Amino acid sequence: MTLAEQRRSYIPKIPTFLQQLHNVRCEPLSDNPQISSEIKAQFSHLQSTNYRLVSGLEKRNSPLKVGVVFSGGPASGGHNVLTGLFDALRQMHKESKLIGFIGGFSGLLEQRYITLSEVQIESVRNQGGFDLIGTGRTKLETKSDLDKVHTALEYLDALVVIGGDDSNTNAAVLANYLLSVGSKTSIIGVPKTIDGDLRSKEIEVSFGFDSACKTYAELIGNICKDALSTRKYYHFIKLMGRSASHIALECALLTQPNLTLIGEEKKSLEQCVHAIVDLIIRRQKAGKEFGVIVVPEGLIEFIPEIDKLLKALASNKLGPDEKVTWDHLPEKIKTQLMTQKDPHGNIKVSQISTEELLIELVKKELSKRNFSGNFDCQHHFFGYEGRCCLPTNFDANYAYSLGRLAAIGVRDGKSGVICAMRCLHKRPEEWIPMLTSLLPLLKLEERSGCKRVVIAKTLVDLRGPAFLQFAQIRASLAIDDQYQFPGPIQFFGNESSVDSGPLFLQIKF
Amino acid sequence: MTLAEQRRSYIPKIPTFLQQLHNVRCEPLSDNPQISSEIKAQFSHLQSTNYRLVSGLEKRNSPLKVGVVFSGGPASGGHNVLTGLFDALRQMHKESKLIGFIGGFSGLLEQRYITLSEVQIESVRNQGGFDLIGTGRTKLETKSDLDKVHTALEYLDALVVIGGDDSNTNAAVLANYLLSVGSKTSIIGVPKTIDGDLRSKEIEVSFGFDSACKTYAELIGNICKDALSTRKYYHFIKLMGRSASHIALECALLTQPNLTLIGEEKKSLEQCVHAIVDLIIRRQKAGKEFGVIVVPEGLIEFIPEIDKLLKALASNKLGPDEKVTWDHLPEKIKTQLMTQKDPHGNIKVSQISTEELLIELVKKELSKRNFSGNFDCQHHFFGYEGRCCLPTNFDANYAYSLGRLAAIGVRDGKSGVICAMRCLHKRPEEWIPMLTSLLPLLKLEERSGCKRVVIAKTLVDLRGPAFLQFAQIRASLAIDDQYQFPGPIQFFGNESSVDSGPLFLQIKF
Repeated sequence: MTLAEQRRSYIPKIPTFLQQLHNVRCEPLSDNPQISSEIKAQFSHLQSTNYRLVSGLEKRNSPLKVGVVFSGGPASGGHNVLTGLFDALRQMHKESKLIGFIGGFSGLLEQRYITLSEVQIESVRNQGGFDLIGTGRTKLETKSDLDKVHTALEYLDALVVIGGDDSNTNAAVLANYLLSVGSKTSIIGVPKTIDGDLRSKEIEVSFGFDSACKTYAELIGNICKDALSTRKYYHFIKLMGRSASHIALECALLTQPNLTLIGEEKKSLEQCVHAIVDLIIRRQKAGKEFGVIVVPEGLIEFIPEIDKLLKALASNKLGPDEKVTWDHLPEKIKTQLMTQKDPHGNIKVSQISTEELLIELVKKELSKRNFSGNFDCQHHFFGYEGRCCLPTNFDANYAYSLGRLAAIGVRDGKSGVICAMRCLHKRPEEWIPMLTSLLPLLKLEERSGCKRVVIAKTLVDLRGPAFLQFAQIRASLAIDDQYQFPGPIQFFGNESSVDSGPLFLQIKF
Repeated sequence: MTLAEQRRSYIPKIPTFLQQLHNVRCEPLSDNPQISSEIKAQFSHLQSTNYRLVSGLEKRNSPLKVGVVFSGGPASGGHNVLTGLFDALRQMHKESKLIGFIGGFSGLLEQRYITLSEVQIESVRNQGGFDLIGTGRTKLETKSDLDKVHTALEYLDALVVIGGDDSNTNAAVLANYLLSVGSKTSIIGVPKTIDGDLRSKEIEVSFGFDSACKTYAELIGNICKDALSTRKYYHFIKLMGRSASHIALECALLTQPNLTLIGEEKKSLEQCVHAIVDLIIRRQKAGKEFGVIVVPEGLIEFIPEIDKLLKALASNKLGPDEKVTWDHLPEKIKTQLMTQKDPHGNIKVSQISTEELLIELVKKELSKRNFSGNFDCQHHFFGYEGRCCLPTNFDANYAYSLGRLAAIGVRDGKSGVICAMRCLHKRPEEWIPMLTSLLPLLKLEERSGCKRVVIAKTLVDLRGPAFLQFAQIRASLAIDDQYQFPGPIQFFGNESSVDSGPLFLQIKF
């Protein structure tokens, strides 16, 4: 029996609150006070109420018909949102139906969907990926889009949107629109993203973050062991995650490489390069011509002079400062900056090899300083390797619980809310499910001259416990190799190790 | 307790023959007949005898003093050779000592070594990497080198050389030299390499191959799942392993990507590009603008026109044919070919981005054929991620057993032999340990005009059962996605899955 097959029979652990669905109902908490008047005005049909679950008989006498859609990049646990939702809807009424829209919001616009069967649901229990119904990056932009979705949802009680910041912004817009036209279909969001940047007081982490970080940490640990064994190379490891550096920070705590750059520190390019060069020189003096350096994909956006340069390039107006930055860049990066523009003229930052940029500049600086040692390096980029892995027990439990919670929101007719769990550092039984209003997440942001509603990405808090812990240990990681080797994700054996969630949540409390 | 700590207490499973060390001894089998007279002449002090283990009381009354060295790139299981050797030597006589030479053969030349303590040995049980004593790529080239090693080994009963083809060639040279000067120190090889190309009738696989392939297969499976979920990208995955394509073949069988190129098929560059372009066009017609393509690192050396070009470039003599090949190459690759030369003028093939070369040529060919679909791609290279991972149970068992077997060889005074196990497709208890002569592995090969002794790398046998099985299924993998998702290596749970070794060994029998 393959591991994937074995995982099908894993039974997710869920909060006590979500065990007896007939015995819980949503109860409003006090309203969220900090919502701007502009947002209130634009989303006048949405409530700012959060809900918790309380005991209370809530029997469903008619079947529910619910749509579900994945939106954006995949994250491990997605299929468990479907299975959690499916199981809960069936427990509420055995004739309930779950309809999967195919390929993201475009499936809604084009009415491509399937009614999910028991056999299909069985096949994806605790499996990675989003392949049962696919995903997409289509956004709902125009009134015509919203009308089309309105039509697609006409006979449904609700739509569950499984997505990140953009997708949940869309969910809020859609929820408001449907209420404004008198539709009874409610819209419920589920926080998904490996990047870990969709957070709030209630949303402690999105599903998928844990599995992705543990997969990357496995690989980083293996590379640290290789560096230590061969004592030959500097490994530059870029990790997916834009813009925030949550993944890099979590992986740094899990594996303790010699240097981890954190975008939110907003160091200049020169500072980053000097930090690396200083490390190389100090290590060489200690007899070490090897090391491991972790770089978040989003770093480049936080570097003040690169940020200016990108904006100047987008508008084709290079000032003297930007000219200096430009001249300093290696040819390869210049080419990438010139050729990787999206249709709006914006530079596709993810296509820039930040790790290769740093390597080139480090080489220049080393030769400027007459470095006499060896500097050989290898670069790696980990991203796609961790978005669709078999979910960790934590993500399997969490995503399944989110699916069940969404079903309660559907049954109780809540719209414009997103599913959340508090106390994720505790055992699943003790997690506290909540349905929280999407409103407090929304912000108005100026993008290319227009004001747009967005959910602001939560960045690494430089005064938060996870970063502070990292800041406390990082000096000692530079020269003494304190690499950790977490190894591959395990699903069996020692319960406390197998069930542990993201490390930063443990530090938090 | 971390996974690495948990693994320390794993007790490797070993062949019945290796359980009672006092009750077995080496018994000669018939001589190897197929050894060339040139090799026989050059290695006149080595015997061509293979040994099997048979019952017979063989008590050791004095302690053994044994050196050990890692040579070449790391492979998971290396530390278990040390622990197996250490435990066996101690069981033979409690005052036996194991001396680790530091950083490969240079540790022997420079007499850098440590006497391994129990605490050190405990710390590396079932751990990845070679970091306890390090490794290196130094070769023993001159008589002066051999003399230095002779001196370093003067008070030792034996040296165990843990290495690949080059290192075991060195072991043979050293064994012969020591016998020629009347030294009593015996030299015993242990077959290590993730590449899986150090094989013979007796050496079914080297340790490290299983762990590396399973790590790469985890990642390839995850990427297949991502491709299937987002239906957006062609992923080109290059896998370490020179020159042979064993890793690519094993991973292809484990994960079933849409296309896997096998170097040994010696397709021309045009054939490779056409195979990919045909696949892309056929898949596009089936509504699929995504896919996964696996490329072995060594592919480029097998492509006849590239091979000719490399030779022409090395001698700076480009004929008309080579000129055509050259003109056909993308600029980036030309630059790599011009700049990545070793001190001897040979091109460092591992530095050539075969996957990027293919992508560029595929793009050209697609536009020549007026392809109207999307072709977006991502490329990956997996190598360092799998050389130092926690060894699979198979590699932990196998490497530990090889270490124990080496100790028997030492005790029984065998030199110029390499450790091997037959029947590796069976349970460890049923493996058949053998000490086989290094002589039949040795060949004379012309390299840059000189005849040199080498152990020829064993290539993928295009008539062997593993390739035939692949050849049988590959057409069906191209369009229907039959991806397999092996997931991360597991150490606990279902015994038959956790203990299974390389897939190709199962096919063999």
